[in-house]
Amino acid sequence: MRAFIFDLDGTLVDTVYPHVVALQQALSEAGVEVPAWLVHRRIGMSGGLSARALAREIGRTLSPAEQDRVQHRHGQIFLELLPSRRPLPGARELVHWLVENHVPFGIATSGRRPDIDASLAALDLPPDLVVVSRGDVLRAKPEPDLFLACQERMGVRREDVYVVGDAVWDLLAARRAGMLSVGLLCGGYSLEELVQAGALRVYRDPSELLNSLDELGVGGRAPE
Amino acid sequence: MRAFIFDLDGTLVDTVYPHVVALQQALSEAGVEVPAWLVHRRIGMSGGLSARALAREIGRTLSPAEQDRVQHRHGQIFLELLPSRRPLPGARELVHWLVENHVPFGIATSGRRPDIDASLAALDLPPDLVVVSRGDVLRAKPEPDLFLACQERMGVRREDVYVVGDAVWDLLAARRAGMLSVGLLCGGYSLEELVQAGALRVYRDPSELLNSLDELGVGGRAPE
Repeated sequence: MRAFIFDLDGTLVDTVYPHVVALQQALSEAGVEVPAWLVHRRIGMSGGLSARALAREIGRTLSPAEQDRVQHRHGQIFLELLPSRRPLPGARELVHWLVENHVPFGIATSGRRPDIDASLAALDLPPDLVVVSRGDVLRAKPEPDLFLACQERMGVRREDVYVVGDAVWDLLAARRAGMLSVGLLCGGYSLEELVQAGALRVYRDPSELLNSLDELGVGGRAPE
Repeated sequence: MRAFIFDLDGTLVDTVYPHVVALQQALSEAGVEVPAWLVHRRIGMSGGLSARALAREIGRTLSPAEQDRVQHRHGQIFLELLPSRRPLPGARELVHWLVENHVPFGIATSGRRPDIDASLAALDLPPDLVVVSRGDVLRAKPEPDLFLACQERMGVRREDVYVVGDAVWDLLAARRAGMLSVGLLCGGYSLEELVQAGALRVYRDPSELLNSLDELGVGGRAPE
């Protein structure tokens, strides 16, 4: 029986672009000026890691206190930009179908509670769903810890798991965890970037994934 | 003598991501809910064209009045998000070098005045520079009109022009205009997307372009 572990931001909820604008602004306030496209390509790592990597890219280092400050402002600006969360096309339907068909799934995100609560609420998830977030593990993506913790808590075998993510960091972490992965374009990476990071298959968004489950050996859904 | 025609947003100024968030929000207010990654892939066409194409993507049509409203709100929200403009890395240095070395260049943008004035001001351009904007031609990118009008006003031959842009719409329009093109990654498209759209070469940003001018037969700059 196959199982799914989903990333959250950019995979199930449409939050990547406001996150980019918010993190770029938070970094700018800390004196770190990085162009938005580089922020986009770092989002999906943990907030701390991406801020550090982006600062290093322009030859700066951030003290732990500066990192905390950037992370805090990132969260604040993000909330101002996006008071409500939009599920990506088909995300709620996909969740519903997996529940109805007893396919095990969980969520593993580099985000932190309570930042992620509004996104989880927008998805109409089952109350007992396994959700592993940044605070639950020592090391975030691209380390495999989030996916391994999620798989263990779900009680499935890692060789049965498809990790579904929009960022290359999801797919790289999945490979390091010994799991197959599926890429989604709806976080703004290109097909080639996701394939090069090891995706078994790439779909546009959760809607196309839902209609392609047969390709992944997760059967039963008739084409619409 | 080679000449350059530059796109503006995402090519010389770091404005793509706030534009995505602003246009998505403006469309949402008009009842058109499209995910941000699709907005990103349409930005760079004219505002009217991209709004129409995005609405069609979800099976909606926009009346001319609705299109005007979306465009107006897009501009308003964009200004709230980004009161000041950041030149992309190397943009000002590239402009300076071209001026110093008497290499002809101009700007051709799908943006409109006065929306683009702050971006132009941030670049420290020569006062007599040829700038062709949306209001100057009948049809915007991916039609070739903007580039052809710019080339004519610059008084150069189209076979001598490199169009420099971050969006596939720039590169497709350049090909239709009979011009070579150079892609830049700093608008958030991937290398493969830009190559597939016909870019002769792809660089990270204006800074890498400036340090690679020899590759394009625009000579004289010593490596840094």
